[in-house]
Amino acid sequence: MQKDLSAALDIGGTKIAGALVDGHGRLLVRTARPTPADRDAATVMRAVAAVVGELTAAPQWARVGAVGIGSAGPVDAAAGTVSPVNIPGWRGFPLVAGVRALTGDLPVVLMGDGVAMAAAEHWQGAARGRANALCMVVSTGVGGGLILGGRPHPGPTGNAGHIGHISIDLDGDRCPCGARGCVERIASGPNIVRRARENGWRPGPGGEDGAAAVAAAARAGDPVARHSFERAAQALAAGIAATAALVEIELAVVGGGVAGAGEVLFAPLRRALREFATLSFVSGLTVVPAETGTDAGLVGAAAAAAQQFRLDAFAATF
Amino acid sequence: MQKDLSAALDIGGTKIAGALVDGHGRLLVRTARPTPADRDAATVMRAVAAVVGELTAAPQWARVGAVGIGSAGPVDAAAGTVSPVNIPGWRGFPLVAGVRALTGDLPVVLMGDGVAMAAAEHWQGAARGRANALCMVVSTGVGGGLILGGRPHPGPTGNAGHIGHISIDLDGDRCPCGARGCVERIASGPNIVRRARENGWRPGPGGEDGAAAVAAAARAGDPVARHSFERAAQALAAGIAATAALVEIELAVVGGGVAGAGEVLFAPLRRALREFATLSFVSGLTVVPAETGTDAGLVGAAAAAAQQFRLDAFAATF
Repeated sequence: MQKDLSAALDIGGTKIAGALVDGHGRLLVRTARPTPADRDAATVMRAVAAVVGELTAAPQWARVGAVGIGSAGPVDAAAGTVSPVNIPGWRGFPLVAGVRALTGDLPVVLMGDGVAMAAAEHWQGAARGRANALCMVVSTGVGGGLILGGRPHPGPTGNAGHIGHISIDLDGDRCPCGARGCVERIASGPNIVRRARENGWRPGPGGEDGAAAVAAAARAGDPVARHSFERAAQALAAGIAATAALVEIELAVVGGGVAGAGEVLFAPLRRALREFATLSFVSGLTVVPAETGTDAGLVGAAAAAAQQFRLDAFAATF
Repeated sequence: MQKDLSAALDIGGTKIAGALVDGHGRLLVRTARPTPADRDAATVMRAVAAVVGELTAAPQWARVGAVGIGSAGPVDAAAGTVSPVNIPGWRGFPLVAGVRALTGDLPVVLMGDGVAMAAAEHWQGAARGRANALCMVVSTGVGGGLILGGRPHPGPTGNAGHIGHISIDLDGDRCPCGARGCVERIASGPNIVRRARENGWRPGPGGEDGAAAVAAAARAGDPVARHSFERAAQALAAGIAATAALVEIELAVVGGGVAGAGEVLFAPLRRALREFATLSFVSGLTVVPAETGTDAGLVGAAAAAAQQFRLDAFAATF
């Protein structure tokens, strides 16, 4: 039978999702389980096994030629292990060996979730046809992945593009990672809310909390809310410009919940990028919203696996 | 005749150097002219022509198989043009076409001087055998180049690795490039001197000025001089850690005049790197002094040309 499908797993702190993906990026089969994130390693792996079990039980499984796993980081693609910050029971956990034991002879590739998202945007989204791009998720955390020379660039351990933890304020606040002034410490959703609250913003009576609520307030003209997004935009711009100076990207794609703020984020982000991306070879750099949605992790993991293991059915679409 | 030599040009704001380089990195023929940096474009090009003329007049010229040009940036390798900050007469100057006109049918490759230095360190220096490394020059400015996947990574325009102009202090001092808080604005030799002077350091009577004098004072225990180097080290560490998070490097090589300060720079640099490089996949990162000297630009440009155009005599040594 033709091996024209790629199986994907997306391992996050909240949800473990799986899908069978075809050469057009369509999810033919999909399933998910909540992540038992506070449990022991074997319990978390059993949730993965349940997801894999539903995929292997599908009639289309016989058409699967490769398995791609995108996981919350850090990962170690070379060793096949993962240590997701939000799944404390997994430290150096041999996820690839565990999945291989469930999927037989299929080739398996592991990557960070930022790399998977970048692969999805490059295949189906805003980075389509671009040779060099940074794709970011700005949400509870800030992650990313790189496209270099027309292909995803995972780096030796599958963690490249980790823009959330580069310091753009070396004397700044301590980040949970141990460094100071990381992009994530300034630009993530919770930090946008924290900064707005520290400066006096409060959710309306009965209103929502969270970065979306700060965005709504900013849209309505609240200067504190607006300032908090402007500061996040500055941090993102400094990080994007640094990436451009280091590896020459032509495009930055920003997705994730915070990107849902739309122009409240993107208008100051474009302004700040003009300030930080000044070198001639980075001055053409543009920033746009992501086009792939919540399935980006699955679509990208499938794409990266299909690309690495050369599934013919995908070749024409890359 | 066997094409076993690579010709190299190194274009700087002070000097235009040229050499014929063999597969062991030896400079068989070498020559240089002062750069008439304040003159018009054609006058600067005539100095290049004089250097090229001495190379082509050498009996070994018949053995040359490729030409590599490393130039002060920014360069545009795709267009074959250069716009060195310190040579104002050259803006978008078609250097590759000019050199081609003097060297006939040989293939020519242009790269930034940071890329050339990285190629030299990878071939003959501290980055030998490393798959992923950042090589930096800390001097009047701060430049760099990347080795990724075992090869120099010039990027589409030959400027990748531009670590001097990433911002690691987004509210910091304005940099001449237009951005704020760039690594170069904190860590270059002149900025090490400026900061020491602002805090009260003065050269001894009749003594030398410059970063080497600040280094000597630091070595003798002067706390102001010491602090100025520590601050430079912090900025370099933040930039190196950012590079590691973005593209996964295992090694940072630091050369240039400021690196001549030795442990006055490297001791605080290693300390600061432990603070900034906290992610599991970057925590093995080490920083070492460069091994290639003032010929790095020539050796690296020759190596990159030999590698790109597959000169057999070099192949075994990469």
